[in-house]
Amino acid sequence: MSFTPELFPSDDGKYFHLKSPTLMPRASGFLWNRKMMIQMNCRGYAVAQFMQPEPAKYAYAPNLEAKTFMQPEQPYYAHHPGRFFYLKDEETGEIFSAPYEPVRVKADDYTFSPGQNDIRWQLRFGELEIALRLSLPVDDVVELWECTLTNHGQTPRALSLYPYFTPGYMSWMNQSAEYRSDLGAVVASCVTPYQKYPDYFKNRHFKDKTYLLHEREPLAWQVQREAFEGEGGLHNPDALTADTLACDDARYETPLAALQYRLTLDKGASETFRFAFGPAKDDEEITQIRQRYLSEAGFEQASLDYRAYLDGGRGVLAINTPDKGLDNFVNHWLARQVFYHGDVNRLTTDPQTRNYLQDNMGMSYIKPEVARQAFLHALSQQESTGAMPDGILLHEDAELKYINQVPHTDHCVWLPVCLKAYLDETGDFELLQEDITGTDGKTLTLAERISNAMHWLLGARDERGLSYIAQGDWCDPMNMVGYKGRGVSGWLSVATAYALNLWADMAEQAGEAQVEVFRQGAAEINEAVNRHLWDGDWYGRGITDDNLVFGIRKDPEGRIFLNPQSWAILAGTCSDEQRARMLRAVEEQLHTPYGVAMLAPAYTAMRDDVGRVTQKHPGSAENGSVYNHAAVFYIYSLYTIGEAERAFTLLRQMIPGPEAEDFAQRGQLPVYIPNYYRGAYHQYPRTAGRSSQLFNTGTVSWVYRSLVEGLFGLKGDGDALRVEPQLPAHWPSAQITRRFRGATFEVHYRRLSTAEGVRVLLDGEPLPEAKVVRPQAGHTYQLDVLLG
Amino acid sequence: MSFTPELFPSDDGKYFHLKSPTLMPRASGFLWNRKMMIQMNCRGYAVAQFMQPEPAKYAYAPNLEAKTFMQPEQPYYAHHPGRFFYLKDEETGEIFSAPYEPVRVKADDYTFSPGQNDIRWQLRFGELEIALRLSLPVDDVVELWECTLTNHGQTPRALSLYPYFTPGYMSWMNQSAEYRSDLGAVVASCVTPYQKYPDYFKNRHFKDKTYLLHEREPLAWQVQREAFEGEGGLHNPDALTADTLACDDARYETPLAALQYRLTLDKGASETFRFAFGPAKDDEEITQIRQRYLSEAGFEQASLDYRAYLDGGRGVLAINTPDKGLDNFVNHWLARQVFYHGDVNRLTTDPQTRNYLQDNMGMSYIKPEVARQAFLHALSQQESTGAMPDGILLHEDAELKYINQVPHTDHCVWLPVCLKAYLDETGDFELLQEDITGTDGKTLTLAERISNAMHWLLGARDERGLSYIAQGDWCDPMNMVGYKGRGVSGWLSVATAYALNLWADMAEQAGEAQVEVFRQGAAEINEAVNRHLWDGDWYGRGITDDNLVFGIRKDPEGRIFLNPQSWAILAGTCSDEQRARMLRAVEEQLHTPYGVAMLAPAYTAMRDDVGRVTQKHPGSAENGSVYNHAAVFYIYSLYTIGEAERAFTLLRQMIPGPEAEDFAQRGQLPVYIPNYYRGAYHQYPRTAGRSSQLFNTGTVSWVYRSLVEGLFGLKGDGDALRVEPQLPAHWPSAQITRRFRGATFEVHYRRLSTAEGVRVLLDGEPLPEAKVVRPQAGHTYQLDVLLG
Repeated sequence: MSFTPELFPSDDGKYFHLKSPTLMPRASGFLWNRKMMIQMNCRGYAVAQFMQPEPAKYAYAPNLEAKTFMQPEQPYYAHHPGRFFYLKDEETGEIFSAPYEPVRVKADDYTFSPGQNDIRWQLRFGELEIALRLSLPVDDVVELWECTLTNHGQTPRALSLYPYFTPGYMSWMNQSAEYRSDLGAVVASCVTPYQKYPDYFKNRHFKDKTYLLHEREPLAWQVQREAFEGEGGLHNPDALTADTLACDDARYETPLAALQYRLTLDKGASETFRFAFGPAKDDEEITQIRQRYLSEAGFEQASLDYRAYLDGGRGVLAINTPDKGLDNFVNHWLARQVFYHGDVNRLTTDPQTRNYLQDNMGMSYIKPEVARQAFLHALSQQESTGAMPDGILLHEDAELKYINQVPHTDHCVWLPVCLKAYLDETGDFELLQEDITGTDGKTLTLAERISNAMHWLLGARDERGLSYIAQGDWCDPMNMVGYKGRGVSGWLSVATAYALNLWADMAEQAGEAQVEVFRQGAAEINEAVNRHLWDGDWYGRGITDDNLVFGIRKDPEGRIFLNPQSWAILAGTCSDEQRARMLRAVEEQLHTPYGVAMLAPAYTAMRDDVGRVTQKHPGSAENGSVYNHAAVFYIYSLYTIGEAERAFTLLRQMIPGPEAEDFAQRGQLPVYIPNYYRGAYHQYPRTAGRSSQLFNTGTVSWVYRSLVEGLFGLKGDGDALRVEPQLPAHWPSAQITRRFRGATFEVHYRRLSTAEGVRVLLDGEPLPEAKVVRPQAGHTYQLDVLLG
Repeated sequence: MSFTPELFPSDDGKYFHLKSPTLMPRASGFLWNRKMMIQMNCRGYAVAQFMQPEPAKYAYAPNLEAKTFMQPEQPYYAHHPGRFFYLKDEETGEIFSAPYEPVRVKADDYTFSPGQNDIRWQLRFGELEIALRLSLPVDDVVELWECTLTNHGQTPRALSLYPYFTPGYMSWMNQSAEYRSDLGAVVASCVTPYQKYPDYFKNRHFKDKTYLLHEREPLAWQVQREAFEGEGGLHNPDALTADTLACDDARYETPLAALQYRLTLDKGASETFRFAFGPAKDDEEITQIRQRYLSEAGFEQASLDYRAYLDGGRGVLAINTPDKGLDNFVNHWLARQVFYHGDVNRLTTDPQTRNYLQDNMGMSYIKPEVARQAFLHALSQQESTGAMPDGILLHEDAELKYINQVPHTDHCVWLPVCLKAYLDETGDFELLQEDITGTDGKTLTLAERISNAMHWLLGARDERGLSYIAQGDWCDPMNMVGYKGRGVSGWLSVATAYALNLWADMAEQAGEAQVEVFRQGAAEINEAVNRHLWDGDWYGRGITDDNLVFGIRKDPEGRIFLNPQSWAILAGTCSDEQRARMLRAVEEQLHTPYGVAMLAPAYTAMRDDVGRVTQKHPGSAENGSVYNHAAVFYIYSLYTIGEAERAFTLLRQMIPGPEAEDFAQRGQLPVYIPNYYRGAYHQYPRTAGRSSQLFNTGTVSWVYRSLVEGLFGLKGDGDALRVEPQLPAHWPSAQITRRFRGATFEVHYRRLSTAEGVRVLLDGEPLPEAKVVRPQAGHTYQLDVLLG
């Protein structure tokens, strides 16, 4: 397995290198800290947001953009917010720009390197080298930019460098920009638009200024976007044909932050420029940012602090397998993405309850104390009925927004599902007895609250025993199935059964009463599902308000859905024979070269009784995507039944590296798993496999869990670590480090033709059972796992 | 008075010509019909909306744009929605585009001609002529485009023509595009995003397709925006370097509608291409549009019908004065703009009550039957307290939006103010006795309802007798003055006095009781205003919740406001001496070369107790604009006191033509009056005078009224037409045609050094009093008006 010369990881794994700005024009990396996030595109476009407390921007579009959640496949266009560095050769007048936009002159050598701690570019135009670096500090909302010019030629070069940052169209209400020599910054100002006076009292504390601070004093500046471009346009702006920038101001004109440095670089010489770009409330804040960061030492300290911050989220796995692409992703990127979700909750103040719980399930492997707190916090917002709200409020001023205003019925399911992973990983059964005083006014233990949630699920079923779907459940926006109050969800029914079974086991261990009610409920549901939804080879997706079963053989579109099958496996709904039929049906109808699709055939039009073309994750022009969150549940369910080969194949399709044949089609570097790859492979092969470019996804926690419990089979079980690996047959060996409850396991898997089943040696001694009981924190164990 | 060669009206006055795309890059014309509006920029950018029933788009921005009211000074940028025609010389490979964007090659000859009935361009690149024409039909939402290429050279030209229309980023939920040879159109499709299921039932009737229909079959097409541009960018797209367009499809990629025609134009030859661009619900609608319009005859019929439609809104004035710029504007553009407002109510379903009333006041001169109906409709939504709502709902599904959700206190004032103009113009006193059954459940006459409104105004005052401002009144967003319920408005107080006086007169004529209550109320208010708000040289703007008078001498910003002075004149609040002081103060502090500012000095920061930097009409980066709606009230008030010269000077500043020295600074062609010119002349001279480019404004009705009642002095008065002209002294003569209650008056003004006062001859006979009593409909009168 080898990487292409155009796309490959760095030797230390901390970067991924892309050698062309046009090969994968949407490729990006992302950085975040405790208050902000930036997705940085290889060509110089950027999407950034920060919390005040709701998500806000400091670099706006050129028009009045809608406030919305993060959009998948958001389009780039010439005036999209970006961070650019124009260069002019003062002798020839030639202009070019880094990283690529807006001039689009191809560098003789180009490398875009999104990293774990920073994002870098290295370009060479002839004998001039341009290195760019973006990093963030841990706690401030500011982008730290470093631009280094080096002359590798034999003769001096006379240059102008123009950092070009885009505050954009900040506000229809009020906007301006000026250069402030007292602050050493371009400062663009606005008033956040509002119409109702109470908003004034909120908005007055906003960071309504966008600054571009510089370390070195510039020769000139320009702060009016339209004047800068003139008739030449963004790719050849009038401002650069002038000797010096205009040193203007912007009065309701679209603000810009452009500076000009003129320098002569001697043979072999190098010069570094530092900038800080971000939002501020006032001059005082801008001054503080200058003092804190605007120096070589300040940048260096910020980097050290940031590295320490990320090191706190390394996770429990380090792997060395025959699959270098997998190693690279798991060792360097996966835990980081899990940490991102768990640490900042996707930078929203009202994460969907299911997302919040799953993101924190992932934190069980990263920072279990955070996960613990999240379970307590989520359940403190449980309704008195036992139902969970559609979103968990994280801030006193937060409110439920967007999709969280639409009632969904599945949130309770995720409580035992996610808690199980936490308990397995930590053994923290005390959590179950923690008191939680809720907004419902009651103080109940966590276990009591989850029992109440289970009772709520049991109650929210129709006379057939199937779960009401109301205006939607998880993953499929089937918003029209049950809005009249009668329609039911096949997936939610089996998911409820799965949750009940899981909870019955945990509750029993915790000494809860009534666990048989849960087991019996699960059995009843499974029976009802088999009676009403088994379609001969797979389970239907649901039954509409008007009693129409859908997601079945006779449907020309949306004939088979993945989720009901995966969860029926988890819930034990199906017999072995049913399961075999299901797996075959999924393989025939949902497997694609880019992963397993969520449904097929993709809908091409809305079904009034079902919903669905409203799907925002368009696997095609319509839908039917390889929705990774659904796909990973199928993978996870396959591991629970020992379908190791099938599971691994699908898992590897989800984490494609440049070693994979179909990698270029994805259009994304393997530094994160996106929420979907486009599907509808049979209908729209041209676009199938494309990445959504959206790194917010519940997928990653489950990939982590599938690795821990499935592939490497090193799962917590009561007071022990159980060893049940499911390595693919083509791996002769693998070595991994697994941290578990403070202990470290150096695990060496070997496939022996002579062995049968699995034999496990602990520090050289065979174990009677494939588990390590009560491992000691601080201790390092050697585990040899011999596979037949 | 002469026009510049770069900017001049056509001989017939039906067009205004601009000879350069860069001299006034934001210059635009606008067209509308009963269902849509388009503002077409000289360079090819467009802003269009249609009603379904709320304002919607069919050509979207490249990103997810906010739904908002029409923005003043909205920015253009490379990917702004536009209508472009690329051209390629197939022999040289040279590309250029009409009208100017996106290639920006300067034509050897360029004329942009926004017209009354259509908008045209005529360009010449060497010996190739390109003529573009945009027109609308009366009742369908569709742009009709005609492109004619003519070869004036001696040798044949081989060309490709590429119409390039921008559906844009239609929806995050679902979008696609394809070429439909069966329809003869590119069809881009989307699903309007929604999250709450009830919206689905509204949205399913939406016109979610954007089509580009062609008359002639193209050689090829391209419907993916990014692929079309490629690395060349919008100014030099990859698609044009290929031999033929890619004939692709778009699946969630940003849709585009581009076609390619290849043609050889012989010497002297000319070819015309016709296109239709607009929204549709389905194929059927697209087919209907094709059948109705897509031919020479169809375009021609649409033009004839549209001209007939506009002819129905000509108004009552045609003038021939020494001022050709004024003649051009009044004869060709002013009534058109008044008609636009009154006919389609700014294309909103909830016009602000004050706007609705004033726009319909303008209709008194255009289509008085429409104005009549509007008074009845507005009052049918009166609240049971007598208060008027913040907006008038025009559609059964309409709701109050944006600023109409913020309670303002002035709406009742506009009832008598606007009704007075209607009654003067029509003599339709029967209207006062019309029964109106309201949403308040009561049936009352119009007069009773207005009396109730006056009582509400009388009641909404504090213990000083001044009018509460609540969260705002007209024209100045002073949203913080009275939000606690105590602050009062100086302007609203005098406006109330004015309204009460007007209504007392009208009500007396109508035999209403209690008119003395209104007169006495007005007198009390005037007294209170003089006691609490007279500041020595002018009236203050108001008193805050915390009892702070503002808009007075000691305020460093917002020291003097125009509105309280204008309306104190109208309300008879001030003595002659006070008035003289006020006029002087206004002249010293508010007059600018670009008109009279709304306040001065412009605020540079928010005043927590007043509001104001929230102003959306930024005369500067902050505010203090020449807000024409306020300015025209000052002009109107000046005419009521015979200040003819002062009034005329300000009026002419508001209607600047290319004959004016400061015209270029405005950046707008004189085809409409914008809602503001930027102010803050002393603080920000660079930007002062710039047009907002927004043609929605209550200004125009009052300009019309000022011309009728003030300048030309031909106002209805009971059963007569009163003659009280106030021509400026430098006009030796003027001739106008005034239609009035079905009669036509040919009026000839002459200034005679021998005359004193005004003498009026009717059909050659001196009139005893300067009025024509009971003119006969259908009759044409000759009026000679001799001025001293």
